[in-house]
Amino acid sequence: MEVEVKFRVNLGEIQPRIEAIADFDHEEVQEDLYFSVPLPALLRIRRIVNRDESILGYKLIKDSRNEEFEEIEVAVEDFEKTKEILKRLGFKEDVWVKKHRYVYKLGNVTFELNRVEGLGDFLDIEVISDDPEKAKEEIWKIAEMLGLGEEDVEPRLYQELIQERSKEKGK
Amino acid sequence: MEVEVKFRVNLGEIQPRIEAIADFDHEEVQEDLYFSVPLPALLRIRRIVNRDESILGYKLIKDSRNEEFEEIEVAVEDFEKTKEILKRLGFKEDVWVKKHRYVYKLGNVTFELNRVEGLGDFLDIEVISDDPEKAKEEIWKIAEMLGLGEEDVEPRLYQELIQERSKEKGK
Repeated sequence: MEVEVKFRVNLGEIQPRIEAIADFDHEEVQEDLYFSVPLPALLRIRRIVNRDESILGYKLIKDSRNEEFEEIEVAVEDFEKTKEILKRLGFKEDVWVKKHRYVYKLGNVTFELNRVEGLGDFLDIEVISDDPEKAKEEIWKIAEMLGLGEEDVEPRLYQELIQERSKEKGK
Repeated sequence: MEVEVKFRVNLGEIQPRIEAIADFDHEEVQEDLYFSVPLPALLRIRRIVNRDESILGYKLIKDSRNEEFEEIEVAVEDFEKTKEILKRLGFKEDVWVKKHRYVYKLGNVTFELNRVEGLGDFLDIEVISDDPEKAKEEIWKIAEMLGLGEEDVEPRLYQELIQERSKEKGK
Protein backbone atom coordinates (compact mmCIF):
# COMPACT_ATOMS: atom_id res chain seq x y z
CA MET A 1 0.00 0.00 0.00
CA GLU A 2 1.02 3.56 -0.71
CA VAL A 3 1.01 5.67 2.46
CA GLU A 4 1.57 9.39 2.04
CA VAL A 5 1.01 12.68 3.80
CA LYS A 6 0.65 15.88 1.80
CA PHE A 7 1.92 19.21 3.18
CA ARG A 8 1.46 22.73 1.89
CA VAL A 9 4.95 24.15 1.53
CA ASN A 10 6.97 26.93 -0.02
CA LEU A 11 9.18 25.26 -2.62
CA GLY A 12 12.07 27.69 -2.25
CA GLU A 13 12.14 27.24 1.54
CA ILE A 14 11.68 23.48 1.74
CA GLN A 15 13.85 22.33 -1.16
CA PRO A 16 17.22 23.05 0.51
CA ARG A 17 16.01 21.32 3.68
CA ILE A 18 15.08 18.19 1.70
CA GLU A 19 18.37 18.31 -0.20
CA ALA A 20 20.20 18.35 3.12
CA ILE A 21 18.80 14.96 4.13
CA ALA A 22 17.76 13.12 0.93
CA ASP A 23 19.15 12.31 -2.52
CA PHE A 24 17.72 13.84 -5.67
CA ASP A 25 16.26 11.06 -7.81
CA HIS A 26 14.59 12.63 -10.86
CA GLU A 27 12.09 15.25 -11.95
CA GLU A 28 8.92 14.95 -13.95
CA VAL A 29 6.52 17.30 -15.69
CA GLN A 30 3.19 15.59 -15.12
CA GLU A 31 -0.17 16.27 -16.72
CA ASP A 32 -2.84 14.13 -15.09
CA LEU A 33 -6.30 13.83 -16.57
CA TYR A 34 -8.80 12.60 -13.99
CA PHE A 35 -12.05 10.93 -14.97
CA SER A 36 -15.33 11.07 -13.07
CA VAL A 37 -15.51 7.91 -11.01
CA PRO A 38 -17.16 7.78 -7.59
CA LEU A 39 -14.84 8.20 -4.60
CA PRO A 40 -13.05 6.43 -2.97
CA ALA A 41 -11.83 5.39 -6.43
CA LEU A 42 -9.67 7.58 -8.65
CA LEU A 43 -9.03 7.02 -12.35
CA ARG A 44 -6.49 9.01 -14.30
CA ILE A 45 -4.11 9.00 -17.21
CA ARG A 46 -0.78 10.63 -16.44
CA ARG A 47 1.33 12.09 -19.18
CA ILE A 48 4.97 12.45 -18.16
CA VAL A 49 5.78 15.21 -20.60
CA ASN A 50 9.56 15.25 -20.19
CA ARG A 51 9.84 11.50 -20.82
CA ASP A 52 7.06 11.17 -23.39
CA GLU A 53 5.44 8.43 -21.33
CA SER A 54 1.82 7.79 -20.33
CA ILE A 55 0.47 5.80 -17.42
CA LEU A 56 -3.06 4.59 -16.77
CA GLY A 57 -3.69 4.63 -13.04
CA TYR A 58 -6.40 3.42 -10.70
CA LYS A 59 -6.25 4.36 -7.04
CA LEU A 60 -8.45 3.39 -4.15
CA ILE A 61 -8.43 5.60 -1.06
CA LYS A 62 -8.38 3.43 2.04
CA ASP A 63 -8.80 6.00 4.82
CA SER A 64 -10.70 9.19 5.66
CA ARG A 65 -7.65 11.47 5.53
CA ASN A 66 -6.56 10.52 1.99
CA GLU A 67 -3.28 9.13 3.26
CA GLU A 68 -3.58 5.42 2.41
CA PHE A 69 -3.95 4.26 -1.17
CA GLU A 70 -4.07 1.03 -3.06
CA GLU A 71 -2.63 1.79 -6.48
CA ILE A 72 -2.51 -0.04 -9.82
CA GLU A 73 -0.55 1.61 -12.61
CA VAL A 74 0.21 0.43 -16.12
CA ALA A 75 2.27 2.20 -18.78
CA VAL A 76 0.35 2.75 -22.01
CA GLU A 77 1.73 3.45 -25.45
CA ASP A 78 -0.48 6.44 -26.23
CA PHE A 79 -2.27 9.01 -24.07
CA GLU A 80 -4.93 10.07 -26.59
CA LYS A 81 -5.97 6.55 -27.56
CA THR A 82 -6.24 5.52 -23.91
CA LYS A 83 -8.36 8.61 -23.24
CA GLU A 84 -10.58 7.78 -26.21
CA ILE A 85 -11.11 4.19 -24.99
CA LEU A 86 -12.07 5.40 -21.49
CA LYS A 87 -14.47 7.97 -22.96
CA ARG A 88 -16.05 5.32 -25.18
CA LEU A 89 -16.50 3.15 -22.10
CA GLY A 90 -18.54 5.95 -20.56
CA PHE A 91 -16.02 7.70 -18.31
CA LYS A 92 -16.21 11.48 -18.39
CA GLU A 93 -13.23 13.82 -18.23
CA ASP A 94 -13.18 15.58 -14.88
CA VAL A 95 -10.13 17.77 -14.19
CA TRP A 96 -6.51 18.21 -15.22
CA VAL A 97 -3.82 18.41 -12.57
CA LYS A 98 -0.54 19.74 -13.98
CA LYS A 99 2.62 19.84 -11.96
CA HIS A 100 6.38 19.95 -11.95
CA ARG A 101 7.63 17.28 -9.58
CA TYR A 102 11.06 16.94 -7.97
CA VAL A 103 11.62 13.50 -6.49
CA TYR A 104 14.06 12.78 -3.64
CA LYS A 105 14.76 9.53 -1.79
CA LEU A 106 15.96 8.65 1.66
CA GLY A 107 15.96 4.89 2.23
CA ASN A 108 12.40 3.68 1.70
CA VAL A 109 10.98 7.21 1.96
CA THR A 110 10.12 9.15 -1.20
CA PHE A 111 9.75 12.94 -1.24
CA GLU A 112 7.61 14.32 -4.03
CA LEU A 113 7.98 18.09 -4.13
CA ASN A 114 5.28 19.44 -6.43
CA ARG A 115 4.67 22.85 -7.94
CA VAL A 116 1.05 22.45 -9.00
CA GLU A 117 -0.37 24.76 -11.66
CA GLY A 118 -2.92 27.07 -10.07
CA LEU A 119 -2.62 25.51 -6.60
CA GLY A 120 0.85 26.22 -5.27
CA ASP A 121 3.58 24.05 -3.77
CA PHE A 122 3.11 20.75 -1.98
CA LEU A 123 5.31 18.06 -0.52
CA ASP A 124 4.10 14.46 -0.49
CA ILE A 125 6.11 12.26 1.83
CA GLU A 126 5.49 8.67 0.81
CA VAL A 127 6.28 5.19 2.06
CA ILE A 128 5.22 1.92 0.42
CA SER A 129 4.20 -0.32 3.32
CA ASP A 130 1.65 -2.86 4.48
CA ASP A 131 1.73 -1.30 7.92
CA PRO A 132 0.16 2.17 7.56
CA GLU A 133 0.64 3.08 11.22
CA LYS A 134 4.35 2.34 11.16
CA ALA A 135 4.67 4.13 7.80
CA LYS A 136 3.00 7.25 9.20
CA GLU A 137 5.29 7.27 12.23
CA GLU A 138 8.22 7.22 9.81
CA ILE A 139 6.68 9.99 7.67
CA TRP A 140 6.05 12.19 10.70
CA LYS A 141 9.57 11.75 12.03
CA ILE A 142 10.88 13.11 8.74
CA ALA A 143 8.23 15.84 8.49
CA GLU A 144 9.38 17.14 11.88
CA MET A 145 13.00 17.15 10.68
CA LEU A 146 11.81 19.42 7.83
CA GLY A 147 9.95 21.70 10.23
CA LEU A 148 6.49 20.61 9.05
CA GLY A 149 3.59 20.14 11.45
CA GLU A 150 -0.03 19.05 11.57
CA GLU A 151 -1.09 22.60 10.59
CA ASP A 152 0.73 22.21 7.25
CA VAL A 153 -1.18 19.06 6.24
CA GLU A 154 -3.45 19.34 3.20
CA PRO A 155 -5.87 16.40 3.40
CA ARG A 156 -7.68 17.16 0.14
CA LEU A 157 -6.75 15.47 -3.12
CA TYR A 158 -5.22 17.59 -5.90
CA GLN A 159 -8.28 16.63 -7.92
CA GLU A 160 -10.56 18.07 -5.21
CA LEU A 161 -8.49 21.24 -4.87
CA ILE A 162 -8.76 21.85 -8.62
CA GLN A 163 -12.50 21.15 -8.53
CA GLU A 164 -12.95 23.63 -5.66
CA ARG A 165 -10.87 26.21 -7.51
CA SER A 166 -13.02 25.82 -10.64
CA LYS A 167 -16.14 26.35 -8.54
CA GLU A 168 -14.63 29.47 -6.94
CA LYS A 169 -13.77 30.84 -10.36
CA GLY A 170 -17.23 30.04 -11.63
CA LYS A 171 -18.82 32.24 -8.95
CA MET B 1 -12.60 1.84 -40.49
CA GLU B 2 -11.73 -1.83 -40.37
CA VAL B 3 -13.77 -3.82 -42.90
CA GLU B 4 -13.47 -7.59 -42.75
CA VAL B 5 -15.29 -10.75 -43.77
CA LYS B 6 -14.77 -13.95 -41.82
CA PHE B 7 -14.89 -17.34 -43.58
CA ARG B 8 -14.89 -20.85 -42.14
CA VAL B 9 -11.98 -22.63 -43.78
CA ASN B 10 -9.76 -25.68 -43.57
CA LEU B 11 -6.30 -24.34 -42.76
CA GLY B 12 -4.42 -27.07 -44.63
CA GLU B 13 -6.45 -26.48 -47.77
CA ILE B 14 -6.56 -22.68 -47.81
CA GLN B 15 -3.01 -21.88 -46.70
CA PRO B 16 -1.28 -22.91 -49.99
CA ARG B 17 -3.88 -20.94 -51.97
CA ILE B 18 -3.19 -17.81 -49.90
CA GLU B 19 0.56 -18.33 -50.20
CA ALA B 20 0.16 -18.47 -53.99
CA ILE B 21 -1.19 -14.91 -54.13
CA ALA B 22 -0.03 -13.08 -50.95
CA ASP B 23 3.15 -12.54 -48.94
CA PHE B 24 3.61 -14.01 -45.49
CA ASP B 25 3.94 -11.17 -42.99
CA HIS B 26 4.15 -12.67 -39.50
CA GLU B 27 2.46 -15.02 -37.09
CA GLU B 28 1.02 -14.46 -33.64
CA VAL B 29 -0.16 -16.57 -30.76
CA GLN B 30 -3.03 -14.51 -29.39
CA GLU B 31 -4.94 -14.88 -26.15
CA ASP B 32 -7.83 -12.42 -26.04
CA LEU B 33 -9.75 -11.79 -22.86
CA TYR B 34 -13.13 -10.22 -23.60
CA PHE B 35 -15.05 -8.24 -20.99
CA SER B 36 -18.83 -7.97 -20.68
CA VAL B 37 -19.82 -4.73 -22.37
CA PRO B 38 -23.09 -4.33 -24.23
CA LEU B 39 -22.96 -4.88 -28.00
CA PRO B 40 -22.22 -3.26 -30.41
CA ALA B 41 -19.13 -2.46 -28.31
CA LEU B 42 -16.35 -4.95 -27.63
CA LEU B 43 -13.67 -4.60 -24.99
CA ARG B 44 -10.70 -6.91 -24.79
CA ILE B 45 -7.10 -7.25 -23.74
CA ARG B 46 -5.01 -9.20 -26.22
CA ARG B 47 -1.87 -10.96 -25.12
CA ILE B 48 0.48 -11.68 -28.03
CA VAL B 49 2.23 -14.59 -26.38
CA ASN B 50 5.08 -15.02 -28.88
CA ARG B 51 6.08 -11.35 -28.65
CA ASP B 52 5.28 -10.81 -24.97
CA GLU B 53 3.08 -7.83 -25.82
CA SER B 54 -0.36 -6.79 -24.60
CA ILE B 55 -2.92 -4.57 -26.29
CA LEU B 56 -6.03 -2.97 -24.85
CA GLY B 57 -8.68 -2.82 -27.55
CA TYR B 58 -12.09 -1.24 -27.95
CA LYS B 59 -14.16 -2.07 -31.01
CA LEU B 60 -17.49 -0.76 -32.17
CA ILE B 61 -19.45 -2.86 -34.64
CA LYS B 62 -20.95 -0.60 -37.30
CA ASP B 63 -23.15 -3.03 -39.24
CA SER B 64 -25.50 -5.98 -38.74
CA ARG B 65 -23.17 -8.58 -40.31
CA ASN B 66 -20.18 -7.85 -38.05
CA GLU B 67 -18.08 -6.77 -41.01
CA GLU B 68 -17.45 -3.08 -40.25
CA PHE B 69 -15.59 -2.01 -37.15
CA GLU B 70 -14.27 1.13 -35.63
CA GLU B 71 -11.24 0.13 -33.63
CA ILE B 72 -9.04 1.81 -31.01
CA GLU B 73 -6.04 -0.14 -29.77
CA VAL B 74 -3.30 0.84 -27.37
CA ALA B 75 -0.29 -1.23 -26.31
CA VAL B 76 -0.08 -1.68 -22.55
CA GLU B 77 2.93 -2.64 -20.48
CA ASP B 78 1.25 -5.39 -18.48
CA PHE B 79 -1.71 -7.69 -19.16
CA GLU B 80 -2.55 -8.54 -15.54
CA LYS B 81 -2.46 -4.97 -14.27
CA THR B 82 -4.66 -3.79 -17.14
CA LYS B 83 -7.11 -6.60 -16.38
CA GLU B 84 -7.12 -5.64 -12.70
CA ILE B 85 -7.88 -1.97 -13.51
CA LEU B 86 -10.78 -2.96 -15.81
CA LYS B 87 -12.16 -5.31 -13.15
CA ARG B 88 -11.91 -2.58 -10.51
CA LEU B 89 -13.80 -0.27 -12.86
CA GLY B 90 -16.64 -2.78 -12.88
CA PHE B 91 -16.05 -4.72 -16.09
CA LYS B 92 -16.57 -8.47 -15.79
CA GLU B 93 -14.48 -11.09 -17.55
CA ASP B 94 -16.53 -12.73 -20.26
CA VAL B 95 -14.67 -15.23 -22.49
CA TRP B 96 -11.17 -16.09 -23.68
CA VAL B 97 -10.51 -16.48 -27.40
CA LYS B 98 -7.17 -18.19 -28.06
CA LYS B 99 -5.75 -18.57 -31.53
CA HIS B 100 -2.70 -19.09 -33.67
CA ARG B 101 -2.75 -16.49 -36.42
CA TYR B 102 -0.82 -16.46 -39.70
CA VAL B 103 -0.85 -13.05 -41.36
CA TYR B 104 -0.39 -12.50 -45.11
CA LYS B 105 -0.53 -9.29 -47.13
CA LEU B 106 -1.42 -8.41 -50.68
CA GLY B 107 -1.35 -4.67 -51.27
CA ASN B 108 -3.83 -3.09 -48.84
CA VAL B 109 -5.51 -6.44 -48.12
CA THR B 110 -4.63 -8.38 -44.98
CA PHE B 111 -5.30 -12.11 -44.62
CA GLU B 112 -5.61 -13.36 -41.06
CA LEU B 113 -5.65 -17.14 -41.07
CA ASN B 114 -6.68 -18.27 -37.60
CA ARG B 115 -6.68 -21.64 -35.89
CA VAL B 116 -8.99 -20.91 -32.97
CA GLU B 117 -8.88 -23.13 -29.89
CA GLY B 118 -12.13 -25.10 -29.70
CA LEU B 119 -13.70 -23.46 -32.76
CA GLY B 120 -11.69 -24.50 -35.82
CA ASP B 121 -10.08 -22.58 -38.67
CA PHE B 122 -11.13 -19.19 -39.97
CA LEU B 123 -9.87 -16.70 -42.50
CA ASP B 124 -10.51 -12.99 -41.95
CA ILE B 125 -9.94 -10.94 -45.09
CA GLU B 126 -9.49 -7.34 -44.01
CA VAL B 127 -9.17 -3.92 -45.59
CA ILE B 128 -8.76 -0.60 -43.76
CA SER B 129 -11.00 1.83 -45.62
CA ASP B 130 -13.47 4.67 -45.21
CA ASP B 131 -15.54 3.22 -48.04
CA PRO B 132 -16.98 -0.08 -46.72
CA GLU B 133 -18.77 -0.92 -49.99
CA LYS B 134 -15.63 -0.57 -52.07
CA ALA B 135 -13.64 -2.50 -49.44
CA LYS B 136 -16.15 -5.36 -49.53
CA GLU B 137 -15.98 -5.54 -53.32
CA GLU B 138 -12.23 -5.89 -53.00
CA ILE B 139 -12.57 -8.54 -50.28
CA TRP B 140 -15.04 -10.57 -52.35
CA LYS B 141 -12.89 -10.45 -55.46
CA ILE B 142 -10.08 -12.04 -53.45
CA ALA B 143 -12.39 -14.49 -51.65
CA GLU B 144 -13.51 -15.81 -55.04
CA MET B 145 -9.89 -16.23 -56.11
CA LEU B 146 -9.49 -18.44 -53.05
CA GLY B 147 -12.61 -20.43 -53.85
CA LEU B 148 -14.64 -19.02 -50.97
CA GLY B 149 -18.33 -18.17 -51.31
CA GLU B 150 -21.23 -16.69 -49.37
CA GLU B 151 -21.89 -20.15 -47.83
CA ASP B 152 -18.48 -20.06 -46.15
CA VAL B 153 -19.11 -16.77 -44.33
CA GLU B 154 -19.27 -16.89 -40.53
CA PRO B 155 -21.05 -13.70 -39.42
CA ARG B 156 -20.75 -14.39 -35.69
CA LEU B 157 -17.95 -12.91 -33.60
CA TYR B 158 -15.35 -15.27 -32.11
CA GLN B 159 -16.60 -14.08 -28.74
CA GLU B 160 -20.15 -15.17 -29.62
CA LEU B 161 -18.99 -18.52 -30.98
CA ILE B 162 -17.15 -19.22 -27.74
CA GLN B 163 -20.17 -18.13 -25.69
CA GLU B 164 -22.44 -20.47 -27.70
CA ARG B 165 -19.97 -23.31 -27.28
CA SER B 166 -19.88 -22.78 -23.50
CA LYS B 167 -23.68 -22.92 -23.42
CA GLU B 168 -23.71 -26.14 -25.50
CA LYS B 169 -21.21 -27.71 -23.15
CA GLY B 170 -23.21 -26.62 -20.14
CA LYS B 171 -26.29 -28.55 -21.35
